[in-house]
Amino acid sequence: MLSLNELQEKMEALPEWSIAGNAIEKIFSFKTFKDSLAFANKVGTLAESLNHHPEITISYTNVKLVLTTHSERGVTLKDIELAKEIDKIEND
Amino acid sequence: MLSLNELQEKMEALPEWSIAGNAIEKIFSFKTFKDSLAFANKVGTLAESLNHHPEITISYTNVKLVLTTHSERGVTLKDIELAKEIDKIEND
Repeated sequence: MLSLNELQEKMEALPEWSIAGNAIEKIFSFKTFKDSLAFANKVGTLAESLNHHPEITISYTNVKLVLTTHSERGVTLKDIELAKEIDKIEND
Repeated sequence: MLSLNELQEKMEALPEWSIAGNAIEKIFSFKTFKDSLAFANKVGTLAESLNHHPEITISYTNVKLVLTTHSERGVTLKDIELAKEIDKIEND
């Protein structure tokens, strides 16, 4: 698990993500529910390929992602890496 | 919006759903994350066809659905109908 100092340093590369408890999270907004679902599927495919799965909440045109590493009860480099990859696919 | 009495009567046909605040919810469990995502997609397709969209939270092998009618700030017959249709596709 990253220390708070380490985490805050890593978060500089993820300005749209925020620390929430033992996780990092970001809300993505889309034009339609279909767009939300399509994004959730892209995130799901990525998560499977990395074998690291965020919590995905689809609320109509918003998708909230919450990333944490359960086995470490906190945020690790796996979460930082996944967040960076997700940001890349946001507007694919 | 349904009255609490009306809602409780309707819930008799939905024994695995529970009332939570101004909504009804149910958690579905699957074997794999892929199964969770596939179910979320089936629910999404159904929601689009009914133009009534639940909140869908995918947490690895669990999918939580929260149904409410925002315009009425509570549970309506649209939610009851959607819950029944979702139960039908759960094991498709």
